[in-house]
Amino acid sequence: MTRRDTRTILLEKGAQIIHRKGFKHTGIKEILDAAGVPKGSFYHYFKSKEDFGLKLLDYYAGYIIGQAESLTEDNKSSAIERLRNFFDRFLCFFESVGCELGCPIGNLSQEMGDLSAPFRKRLEEIFLMIRSAVEEVLTEARQVGDLPEVVNAQEMADFIINSWEGALLRMKVQKTSEPLKLFDRIIFNDLLRPLGRVQGKS
Amino acid sequence: MTRRDTRTILLEKGAQIIHRKGFKHTGIKEILDAAGVPKGSFYHYFKSKEDFGLKLLDYYAGYIIGQAESLTEDNKSSAIERLRNFFDRFLCFFESVGCELGCPIGNLSQEMGDLSAPFRKRLEEIFLMIRSAVEEVLTEARQVGDLPEVVNAQEMADFIINSWEGALLRMKVQKTSEPLKLFDRIIFNDLLRPLGRVQGKS
Repeated sequence: MTRRDTRTILLEKGAQIIHRKGFKHTGIKEILDAAGVPKGSFYHYFKSKEDFGLKLLDYYAGYIIGQAESLTEDNKSSAIERLRNFFDRFLCFFESVGCELGCPIGNLSQEMGDLSAPFRKRLEEIFLMIRSAVEEVLTEARQVGDLPEVVNAQEMADFIINSWEGALLRMKVQKTSEPLKLFDRIIFNDLLRPLGRVQGKS
Repeated sequence: MTRRDTRTILLEKGAQIIHRKGFKHTGIKEILDAAGVPKGSFYHYFKSKEDFGLKLLDYYAGYIIGQAESLTEDNKSSAIERLRNFFDRFLCFFESVGCELGCPIGNLSQEMGDLSAPFRKRLEEIFLMIRSAVEEVLTEARQVGDLPEVVNAQEMADFIINSWEGALLRMKVQKTSEPLKLFDRIIFNDLLRPLGRVQGKS
């Protein structure tokens, strides 16, 4: 394997294991074993376990930001529909894996938020990247009159993302997708359609 | 110390340490040391570390359920005001501790939801107890006309609790109470006051 291959495999395997077990509870040896990489190679590619963790955040972020591109790229659907579809695709994914795992960014926020300043800083940067994509689509919805003028797109984006993280957390203990479906119903039928709701159209 | 005292002290110290560091990453020895209890005593009081963890969930739940009693006991404020105050008291607490820690039930849901069936079962039971208290207050609000008849109190209670957990998770990486304040604004100004909002009164 080339240097780049090995590094990528370590990140891929680490991403899988840490997604389920958390960062602190996963040993470097476990990742090396899963990757089939000889013991001792780890520090050839990463300065420390924390350095590995930070690179792993970039790896997770790359996937999520890739998914978020669908928010602005697909122009056949309305802005609100694209946002709803974005979350619905994750809902389908979580149903396909037995409502386990949750969001790796949310998991690591919970686990590492109080324990590591570099993790915290990077995690918040990732949240802001996701927020930016959601804010953009909400701004578009407001511009075409699908959301009231009074809606603050940036705040609403933050609220939606945080609520989604909470729904995923609850999914992990319920082991059903009901918290995600409830998120979908209340965000899209009630919160983002206030006029429709009052008029009994939702 | 009596048997009961020692057991309580182990739970109190364990609750503090695990609230910050998580369950898997905290060793029994660390709890015994913090409690000033001789090594070897642990298994006199608890069958296993998992047994200790489950008793700890009851300990945390007792505190939260105690706080939730304010939802129904204080009759000077409206139902919605009592609910808002319930969350505001937690907001003040988290501000007083530097926006750290988060909700122990949420933290352990995130950490243990996929790893232990007994934890998961007990965590969901605790969520349902909290939901029941919030549902009761929302039902009261609906009965006196402060919420529209169409609001499903049980679903709304679940959504509010899950969103709160998500706000706390985000607080841990932002290290500000802004996610909790945003939760407050959107839940109470927008979601629970749809008529007021459309009429521009919020």
